[in-house]
Amino acid sequence: MEIENKRKLKERCALRRNITKEFLAEFLGTFVLILFGCGSVAQTVLSRGTQGETLTIHIGFTLGVMMAVYIAGGVSGAHVNPAVSLAMFLGAFAGAAVVFGLYYDAFMDYTGGVLAVTGSNATASIFASYPAKHLSILNGFIDQVIATGCLVMCILAILDGKNIGAPKGMEPLAIGLIIMAIGVSMGLNCGYPINPARDLGPRLFTAVAGWGREVFSASGHWWWIPVAGPMVGGVVGAVVYLLFIELHHGEPEKHQEEEENSAKDKYEMITMS
Amino acid sequence: MEIENKRKLKERCALRRNITKEFLAEFLGTFVLILFGCGSVAQTVLSRGTQGETLTIHIGFTLGVMMAVYIAGGVSGAHVNPAVSLAMFLGAFAGAAVVFGLYYDAFMDYTGGVLAVTGSNATASIFASYPAKHLSILNGFIDQVIATGCLVMCILAILDGKNIGAPKGMEPLAIGLIIMAIGVSMGLNCGYPINPARDLGPRLFTAVAGWGREVFSASGHWWWIPVAGPMVGGVVGAVVYLLFIELHHGEPEKHQEEEENSAKDKYEMITMS
Amino acid sequence: MEIENKRKLKERCALRRNITKEFLAEFLGTFVLILFGCGSVAQTVLSRGTQGETLTIHIGFTLGVMMAVYIAGGVSGAHVNPAVSLAMFLGAFAGAAVVFGLYYDAFMDYTGGVLAVTGSNATASIFASYPAKHLSILNGFIDQVIATGCLVMCILAILDGKNIGAPKGMEPLAIGLIIMAIGVSMGLNCGYPINPARDLGPRLFTAVAGWGREVFSASGHWWWIPVAGPMVGGVVGAVVYLLFIELHHGEPEKHQEEEENSAKDKYEMITMS
Amino acid sequence: MEIENKRKLKERCALRRNITKEFLAEFLGTFVLILFGCGSVAQTVLSRGTQGETLTIHIGFTLGVMMAVYIAGGVSGAHVNPAVSLAMFLGAFAGAAVVFGLYYDAFMDYTGGVLAVTGSNATASIFASYPAKHLSILNGFIDQVIATGCLVMCILAILDGKNIGAPKGMEPLAIGLIIMAIGVSMGLNCGYPINPARDLGPRLFTAVAGWGREVFSASGHWWWIPVAGPMVGGVVGAVVYLLFIELHHGEPEKHQEEEENSAKDKYEMITMS
Repeated sequence: MEIENKRKLKERCALRRNITKEFLAEFLGTFVLILFGCGSVAQTVLSRGTQGETLTIHIGFTLGVMMAVYIAGGVSGAHVNPAVSLAMFLGAFAGAAVVFGLYYDAFMDYTGGVLAVTGSNATASIFASYPAKHLSILNGFIDQVIATGCLVMCILAILDGKNIGAPKGMEPLAIGLIIMAIGVSMGLNCGYPINPARDLGPRLFTAVAGWGREVFSASGHWWWIPVAGPMVGGVVGAVVYLLFIELHHGEPEKHQEEEENSAKDKYEMITMS
Repeated sequence: MEIENKRKLKERCALRRNITKEFLAEFLGTFVLILFGCGSVAQTVLSRGTQGETLTIHIGFTLGVMMAVYIAGGVSGAHVNPAVSLAMFLGAFAGAAVVFGLYYDAFMDYTGGVLAVTGSNATASIFASYPAKHLSILNGFIDQVIATGCLVMCILAILDGKNIGAPKGMEPLAIGLIIMAIGVSMGLNCGYPINPARDLGPRLFTAVAGWGREVFSASGHWWWIPVAGPMVGGVVGAVVYLLFIELHHGEPEKHQEEEENSAKDKYEMITMS
Repeated sequence: MEIENKRKLKERCALRRNITKEFLAEFLGTFVLILFGCGSVAQTVLSRGTQGETLTIHIGFTLGVMMAVYIAGGVSGAHVNPAVSLAMFLGAFAGAAVVFGLYYDAFMDYTGGVLAVTGSNATASIFASYPAKHLSILNGFIDQVIATGCLVMCILAILDGKNIGAPKGMEPLAIGLIIMAIGVSMGLNCGYPINPARDLGPRLFTAVAGWGREVFSASGHWWWIPVAGPMVGGVVGAVVYLLFIELHHGEPEKHQEEEENSAKDKYEMITMS
Repeated sequence: MEIENKRKLKERCALRRNITKEFLAEFLGTFVLILFGCGSVAQTVLSRGTQGETLTIHIGFTLGVMMAVYIAGGVSGAHVNPAVSLAMFLGAFAGAAVVFGLYYDAFMDYTGGVLAVTGSNATASIFASYPAKHLSILNGFIDQVIATGCLVMCILAILDGKNIGAPKGMEPLAIGLIIMAIGVSMGLNCGYPINPARDLGPRLFTAVAGWGREVFSASGHWWWIPVAGPMVGGVVGAVVYLLFIELHHGEPEKHQEEEENSAKDKYEMITMS
């Protein structure tokens, strides 16, 4: 009886340790992603285009995701629980705060102290997605479903051991390049947020840091599209890859344990992107 | 007798399963290629150059091919049959349709509802190749033969196990970079279609989606050049690599079975590019 | 007694040999880094932007670091001693001198022989960091701490054998890409020096080569920020990675010796970046 | 006696076969390098900068070298004989001819039929190096020595099995990226020819194809600098790497045969770049 209890206690401790470990890794990974990604938007906007352009922003998010996967991708807990989502959200919030701190003087110089959500001196779009003028809510939602679907589909292909697959240790680069592909081809409508935490965390930061509630009300309460769209898109992408490719793989060549690890890795890499 | 029949039935089922599998993979691969590639042209044209440039279009096709190879390159049926060509054509058609859907609002905003093949607001060139003004039909055909020849020659080098060869899992990146090389050096004449299905599928989409028959009649019925030219070019490239390099490799180091797989892989990767 | 002395002598010789070896490697590595990095700034400034842009400068430093790590990264002495710092400083000084020699005619043509630190024809910023107008000393210091912290954190992730880690031989590329990430996202304030020797060596070169003492007095004696900031930032980055990731790795899987080598490699790669 | 003769005959045949094999590989490799490299200059010049820029030209040569190494780098004869130099020269000549053919209509459209070496409509610089106005002969020679020295030094580091070294099959990418590094940092003076055959072959093509003898007399008979400079620079780079790094490697870890192969590979990869 006592032995049984000890075993349970030990397991519980191990679980808690795993969750802590994963929480910290996801936090730091998302933090770095936002720091490089939103940092590159900040550099472009605040220099009025003289030290940045659309392409450098794509590079910022590409390498942000690459580094985030190098940082957090090897920590495979794969507990689908709210702690992970919270860690990502907090990491994104913290990343946005550090971008603001890094460029505090530049923000004050550019804005004259007025942090605007819209207009020619708007800076809120450094941190979160706002739609282009031409975009309707419906087309925006479709945009996020398609873009996130493509992301998840390509990640699954890159990590699929029965397909070509990227070599061990090169997955972060290959996954980063999906972001580049999406950036150059699907960025016109609303700047490819394709990740709820990545968009919501920095948006909340702008709300509390001086841009105010308008960050949520702007463009017809646009904010929920980059949250809901990617959730739907992620499922769509995974189902398409399953139906078109995975289902048709032959007999398994891997041991079950490896499969499991691989599933954990996939989960990690998708949440990071 | 009955056993013999059963064996035949089983073989037929396996064949059918293989064809289905390959059909789906080729469809999805070409779909993604067009989505990223034509998407990057759409983003550049529809933003009037503010959110894209020649280089981002090259990146779009480069990464489109890279992701297409990651998706479809590991599914090696290598049945040279019409089903594969059909799958690629349909995948390209579907990819074009999704680009149109993704940017529907932007298309309406840019064109005012008039989908033009020529003129300053032309959008047909987002989907298919049209020649520059200076280009004659003969020079256009030569262009497609040279560019596709180079593509096939470089793919064969990258996949040649007796040459340096790209490491396992990195072939998609290396093959994608051939597209980049062709894009920066051979894109001036007609935008490097170098793949019949890639050009014809989206062109047919524009014909039915509102641009009309002019997509086939424009520029002196240009449409057949990007179909016929690459077919000739592919053969030329393969023959040149054979004569200059492969014929002179020493004794075989690989087992026959591996060779066969490798041939299948080559076939897959070439059709995907 | 004599045998003991011989052993000591031999050890001392080996140590001296190792220090020489490492001195030369660090010198050559930093030399190449500055040659490619500052060379790309020179090309951009001296062509008045016609043959270079912000992005090509990022590429110059990215590939400069990549090549520096290929050159010096395999020479692992890991003696934390002043000789290494001196080698890096001298290598950076020599690299700056060669950039000046390479573009001597272009410098004379551009400047009319007047080597200015400030003003519209300023060329001192080709070699060392000067802050943007908007930047305060405090924000500048924070900038260098954050940017160098990110650099060290990402290097540690890329080299962490218990995380994903870059494949053997690809670390230089991955580390180079961190510089690109920092360049596109954190370059606006003062151009991401993030390395004391890299900034101080070329700055001293400009002081003696004709730009004069103003290179140290300019912008409120800015010069010490890119020296002190990165030192603090490096420690911060290492501590953050330790607390968030390394501490939570499970039981060791590597032999002690390997660990030691790995620690030496990390040290080398960080000093090179 | 007869047996001895037979053996000699067989050896001679093998040697001849090896030389043929290497001749063809070097020809094709240099051909592709010039096709992508000079093609990217042609695209930029002939579109008057609308479909190309300095960066796409760097990409053209970077990927040209990468593909050339994939094509010819695995054919290791390493006979230092005039046949190899001739093959490279002929390959470069043929590459230039194909670029001219590919863009024949564009050349006629751009030039109005007058192939000029100097002036605002000059097109000779598409094929060979011409110095910038500011450049003296002495500085031009130093430029070629430094740039080629860096190239050889970095190639030796990337291929050095006792240093970090690029992974097998990734050397072509790493070597290509050296060209990019040189292009962004050392291209201002005369456009980094850094290879005698690469510059001389296409220059001779322009001489016979209609640009005339001025391609040799222009800029104070500049043509010999990109021939002689790289020869000196190559030796300098190899000696520097030997003195600073290779000499200080510890005891050999490889078998002699491997060393030999590795030496052959290095030779091949250097001649290709």
